[in-house]
Amino acid sequence: MTQSSFDEMLERIDAIVKNQIIPLETLLLTQQWDQLYPALDEIRQNVKAANLWAPNLPADVGGMNLSTVELGQIAEVSGQSPLGHYCLGCQAPDAGNAELLHIYANDFIKSHFLLPLAQGEIRSCFAMTEPATAGSNPTLLEATAELIDDQWLINGRKWFTTAADGSQFTIVMAVTEPDAPKHQKASMIIVPLDNPGYRMIRNIPVMGHEGKGYYSHSEVEFVNCKVPANHLIGQRGQGFKMAQQRLGPGRIQHCMRWIGIARRCFEIMCKHVKNRPITGTSTLADQAVIQSKIAESYAAMNASRTLVMETAKIIDEAGWAAARHHISMIKFECANMLQSVVDNTLQSMGALGMTDDSIVAFFYREERAARIYDGPDEVHKISLAKSLLKQF
Amino acid sequence: MTQSSFDEMLERIDAIVKNQIIPLETLLLTQQWDQLYPALDEIRQNVKAANLWAPNLPADVGGMNLSTVELGQIAEVSGQSPLGHYCLGCQAPDAGNAELLHIYANDFIKSHFLLPLAQGEIRSCFAMTEPATAGSNPTLLEATAELIDDQWLINGRKWFTTAADGSQFTIVMAVTEPDAPKHQKASMIIVPLDNPGYRMIRNIPVMGHEGKGYYSHSEVEFVNCKVPANHLIGQRGQGFKMAQQRLGPGRIQHCMRWIGIARRCFEIMCKHVKNRPITGTSTLADQAVIQSKIAESYAAMNASRTLVMETAKIIDEAGWAAARHHISMIKFECANMLQSVVDNTLQSMGALGMTDDSIVAFFYREERAARIYDGPDEVHKISLAKSLLKQF
Amino acid sequence: MTQSSFDEMLERIDAIVKNQIIPLETLLLTQQWDQLYPALDEIRQNVKAANLWAPNLPADVGGMNLSTVELGQIAEVSGQSPLGHYCLGCQAPDAGNAELLHIYANDFIKSHFLLPLAQGEIRSCFAMTEPATAGSNPTLLEATAELIDDQWLINGRKWFTTAADGSQFTIVMAVTEPDAPKHQKASMIIVPLDNPGYRMIRNIPVMGHEGKGYYSHSEVEFVNCKVPANHLIGQRGQGFKMAQQRLGPGRIQHCMRWIGIARRCFEIMCKHVKNRPITGTSTLADQAVIQSKIAESYAAMNASRTLVMETAKIIDEAGWAAARHHISMIKFECANMLQSVVDNTLQSMGALGMTDDSIVAFFYREERAARIYDGPDEVHKISLAKSLLKQF
Amino acid sequence: MTQSSFDEMLERIDAIVKNQIIPLETLLLTQQWDQLYPALDEIRQNVKAANLWAPNLPADVGGMNLSTVELGQIAEVSGQSPLGHYCLGCQAPDAGNAELLHIYANDFIKSHFLLPLAQGEIRSCFAMTEPATAGSNPTLLEATAELIDDQWLINGRKWFTTAADGSQFTIVMAVTEPDAPKHQKASMIIVPLDNPGYRMIRNIPVMGHEGKGYYSHSEVEFVNCKVPANHLIGQRGQGFKMAQQRLGPGRIQHCMRWIGIARRCFEIMCKHVKNRPITGTSTLADQAVIQSKIAESYAAMNASRTLVMETAKIIDEAGWAAARHHISMIKFECANMLQSVVDNTLQSMGALGMTDDSIVAFFYREERAARIYDGPDEVHKISLAKSLLKQF
Repeated sequence: MTQSSFDEMLERIDAIVKNQIIPLETLLLTQQWDQLYPALDEIRQNVKAANLWAPNLPADVGGMNLSTVELGQIAEVSGQSPLGHYCLGCQAPDAGNAELLHIYANDFIKSHFLLPLAQGEIRSCFAMTEPATAGSNPTLLEATAELIDDQWLINGRKWFTTAADGSQFTIVMAVTEPDAPKHQKASMIIVPLDNPGYRMIRNIPVMGHEGKGYYSHSEVEFVNCKVPANHLIGQRGQGFKMAQQRLGPGRIQHCMRWIGIARRCFEIMCKHVKNRPITGTSTLADQAVIQSKIAESYAAMNASRTLVMETAKIIDEAGWAAARHHISMIKFECANMLQSVVDNTLQSMGALGMTDDSIVAFFYREERAARIYDGPDEVHKISLAKSLLKQF
Repeated sequence: MTQSSFDEMLERIDAIVKNQIIPLETLLLTQQWDQLYPALDEIRQNVKAANLWAPNLPADVGGMNLSTVELGQIAEVSGQSPLGHYCLGCQAPDAGNAELLHIYANDFIKSHFLLPLAQGEIRSCFAMTEPATAGSNPTLLEATAELIDDQWLINGRKWFTTAADGSQFTIVMAVTEPDAPKHQKASMIIVPLDNPGYRMIRNIPVMGHEGKGYYSHSEVEFVNCKVPANHLIGQRGQGFKMAQQRLGPGRIQHCMRWIGIARRCFEIMCKHVKNRPITGTSTLADQAVIQSKIAESYAAMNASRTLVMETAKIIDEAGWAAARHHISMIKFECANMLQSVVDNTLQSMGALGMTDDSIVAFFYREERAARIYDGPDEVHKISLAKSLLKQF
Repeated sequence: MTQSSFDEMLERIDAIVKNQIIPLETLLLTQQWDQLYPALDEIRQNVKAANLWAPNLPADVGGMNLSTVELGQIAEVSGQSPLGHYCLGCQAPDAGNAELLHIYANDFIKSHFLLPLAQGEIRSCFAMTEPATAGSNPTLLEATAELIDDQWLINGRKWFTTAADGSQFTIVMAVTEPDAPKHQKASMIIVPLDNPGYRMIRNIPVMGHEGKGYYSHSEVEFVNCKVPANHLIGQRGQGFKMAQQRLGPGRIQHCMRWIGIARRCFEIMCKHVKNRPITGTSTLADQAVIQSKIAESYAAMNASRTLVMETAKIIDEAGWAAARHHISMIKFECANMLQSVVDNTLQSMGALGMTDDSIVAFFYREERAARIYDGPDEVHKISLAKSLLKQF
Repeated sequence: MTQSSFDEMLERIDAIVKNQIIPLETLLLTQQWDQLYPALDEIRQNVKAANLWAPNLPADVGGMNLSTVELGQIAEVSGQSPLGHYCLGCQAPDAGNAELLHIYANDFIKSHFLLPLAQGEIRSCFAMTEPATAGSNPTLLEATAELIDDQWLINGRKWFTTAADGSQFTIVMAVTEPDAPKHQKASMIIVPLDNPGYRMIRNIPVMGHEGKGYYSHSEVEFVNCKVPANHLIGQRGQGFKMAQQRLGPGRIQHCMRWIGIARRCFEIMCKHVKNRPITGTSTLADQAVIQSKIAESYAAMNASRTLVMETAKIIDEAGWAAARHHISMIKFECANMLQSVVDNTLQSMGALGMTDDSIVAFFYREERAARIYDGPDEVHKISLAKSLLKQF
């Protein structure tokens, strides 16, 4: 794609976000799921009609076949709304699942699960984190899967299985090789969620809400849950390797989505302070302390964006391995930038920032998770440092 | 009261908080108002029976007649739960309203409004902040009250009128002297909320919830609202002076309540990390990065507590004026300590910290307001600095 | 220049820095000027012989004619040592002076001052900041120059005239049009320093030392100092415009020099912690708290570098005006990154970090100025914010 | 001592600091040792004559016999100048040495070393930290002392032996029981510095200067150094226990000295900004960003002071053990407060802050060590957290 036709496409996506998607946010904020999902589906149809569907996927499953650099820019623009990625068909965890299945799945899985998923006809989830073991050390995993009579017998409890509510299948991570070295114990297996051995325990209340459908995180249970042997993804014992690989592309999309959020907040902050009289003749925008926050937010946001785009460029030009230090860095750098910009915005809005009359309070509470999921800051920093120190 | 009998009393309050109040928090977190309020009322009766009611009030209206130092310590202990102050009858804004009326109200107001309020028979609210004007500069106030035929004719719109839902009366701040110097324009007037000129527009959704009853913040309107002349509190034009005075005692209680929250979070954090295995043989408590957060949280919490208690001591020994720099300092110092300790706690809990399975996520979202209400950090810092700089 | 020949050149410069320049730092740290300057001169001759002289200048005055992106990379590599830029002939303030004269000077000035300066035969300084007026608001300038009988009569006092000691001429900024609008009052005039109207008052002791020669900052005075009319640079009243322009290119070089310092410190930190036993079986490098600092330093350094290189690219492709927000941002972003990385390094070295046995303590004290010169952080932030807010 | 007579004494000390001591700082800043020391000695005589000598010592060795609370306040006032503690005879390391000898030394040591030390007739140093082993883990100590024929044979290398230059004796920490548990290996032995087995290698250049006499830190060596058996302090193997105890009282004095520095900087900052015109009609003091720094500095300084004074009160009333968490906390809390206040002051002064025309740059570079000596922040935080976590 030429630069100018890509730029034109970005503008079309930006227009959809601003004109069609953002107006629906009030339904999200007020938990009006029955109105929200049909409205989102309508936008999804428009997006498909406009050939903007699944920017993250290869062409052979109906995606846009973009470079990482291009995908990153789309992730920023669509990330301006918490509804954006869903409308473009590149929402986590479906995006990561589809990317993974495209590489590793057998033909049966591809035709039965990947294709309808890629088309947005069904949704999926990813059952890895467990309530009883530390998410930051996945080798502690306790769920098991045993191959008996050509069927996987799965037992275990998972939580923060994002979007399980309403999903048609999950990928479950379970120990299949208990005697192997710790990073080769686990495998990934597909479980259709109408399986009688699967039970959704609850949608976990997160920051005050249980959510519903796509916008939820479940606690789920597998009790003597049986699926055919061919539901295995890739090879036995490859679970961690694939999980690692699954996170990679998602990292750019997450980080750029956060930058989209920061950009949205930054604009809200600037507009608010320009329009808020503070004395008879001046507005909040004339206050030096506010100006400092604006400048700091802008610089942090731009530094993060530039760093992520450089990471994407390295990936495109030299591959994931060459970018591994960058991929570690951007996780905590962007997540902290995000928290800081959202906090600055909320503070500059005063009491209004606490209300759901703006989207800022939503970002404040929901995106606090950015410093936690896919590995907390602390874990990424230590792991990056260990790798860097090897060079000395 | 002797030190030992006071300490014994503190322990009794702590026991009530831990054994009776904290178990009810789940009703708050799940918005089960119909069950919550009767349960709280029962505790309030126990508290009265135990002579622990209204620690903030003078004895002549049924209070405990405590020093500021003593009151501060109670505010910390009861602040460990968001339900604590309500159960002890010292919840904002009723506490501040009652303290104000005790000093300034005429006999009619005292008998009709203060006494039942002090007894917890009715609730009240305080209508000062306006949606259209910056809360940080109250001299921009637009609501008006005009004395016509011995009646106040009140017009204006207010928001963040905390706990208006279910209140029997409000104190409204309105411009009565439009031609006076800017700090002498406003007066305070009592409006019973069954007045036909009063309208509650909505409970403002804050951080995802509208709340209900005491736990809510309303947007309200006064349209040609008439009340008798004797509903004026104090003198015409004294509004700002009284508002300032009203904030003073509340400052200690707010700050100590925040320290109670920090202490609660600190204990949750320590217990969590001790019980969270991270490898086969170690827990999160063995991680140096977690230990650093714990030490920093503990030091910040103790520094804040000591500073507030020193402030209380100055107030008791030398009066409010002598403590004015301290009163400014503790507002932003404690609010920022609180945000940092809550954030450290949430981060150390990982995904669990995002859920409503613990109270931490509630504190994270609700208490973000600490840096905003009663004046944002920025305003307090500038005002403190200006006063300090006069000495040079 | 092709990428590969440029990369090869960068490596050659890096080798000179590491093998020839860094070994001389001990002479700088111990103030052994008599040995230092001859040794530096020798390296300068090597640099010229290797065609690496004056990377910042156009070819017609003997420079390397590089793009901003290329120059930036050289500034980083040579910035690893406080002696690097001097050895390559691109040291401030000579670099900025030469760049300015190349654009604005008349032929007389070019031949008499610019050419020998560009060749490193003489040194120069820039007399703008005044002790009595705030450097952050240059429009307060008090020095004056009056044109009388075809001679400029200059009076005024300046300080932080970097490298005045041993310079052959200075560019002085003085008010020549007292009645013009405030940004058009000042002009720039060249004053040879053997002029009897010029007096060097002192080398200002900075962070414990007066320095000597190039490595010094002087307080100077002009008393009825006369120079011919043709010593004027550019037009009367153009002083601020030219000063602004003079800072522009220097910004990239300063920021990239700081990144060179950060990189040097980062390497020192990593090497130190790997070699410092902390128990019988582990080193400082195994400490999680140290690892966190290393990861944070690395991320901050990379984010800054990427942002500056993006700025350089915008300048090369779209010009200075298009890059103005970036140029503001990188000043405070990089200066704060630098302070943080240097501080992390010093802390990780313990007592050794306080000594002059390593270069870190030198960077700690000398580069504290980064947040001050060319405008303090606070001024840049406010000015950036004001410009950004115009778009809303 | 009554409160009022103590307050009057504090004022007298403050007057000495301001009128006699601070004027001598320029001699320190310019390294004019030959003039400085005689001038300081003169003040010491005045101090003795005024009965203000050795506030830290018991009366039986000529000290003032003060409570920890009282001593802390004096340490703040005299800490306003880097020359203050020396003039009052309570300078580290002599203060800690004398306090230790008073408790543990035999009669011979008391009469030969403690008495002249307490009188300020001689100076001493403390040789513990070693260049080759991490100061943060003293159990790695390599220096040895062997008792042979009733003489200690000492071998080892030490550095950061503060004030060794010109001292008459040192206390050396050496391994005497190599086979004991790690905290019982070391002992403390007195070595007169005219001993032929002692060699001062150098005054270590710290932040640009080697210093001289009291204001210096040496690297020293003991080679087959012999002293009589009765030079042992306390019991064999008690070294670490005594070192710990030696740090205790010093902690309050260090922390309060830092608060004295913060107070000095705060006053310098306030005066500077009030007197620095920034436009025709306003000064730096009118800038909101400066005001914020002033308020934050004031709050941090007061929070630290209050916390240290609370610590002192606990020590006086309940003993050192009861205060151990407080003693850990105040070390890193105060050291970080100090760095922040000094940095704010320097930044608010602009270029002037970098110069030795004010004392601020001296504090900036010298007091960076506060976060390192007596254990770096990181070590204190981890140790505090471990102790706190035991309660859960």
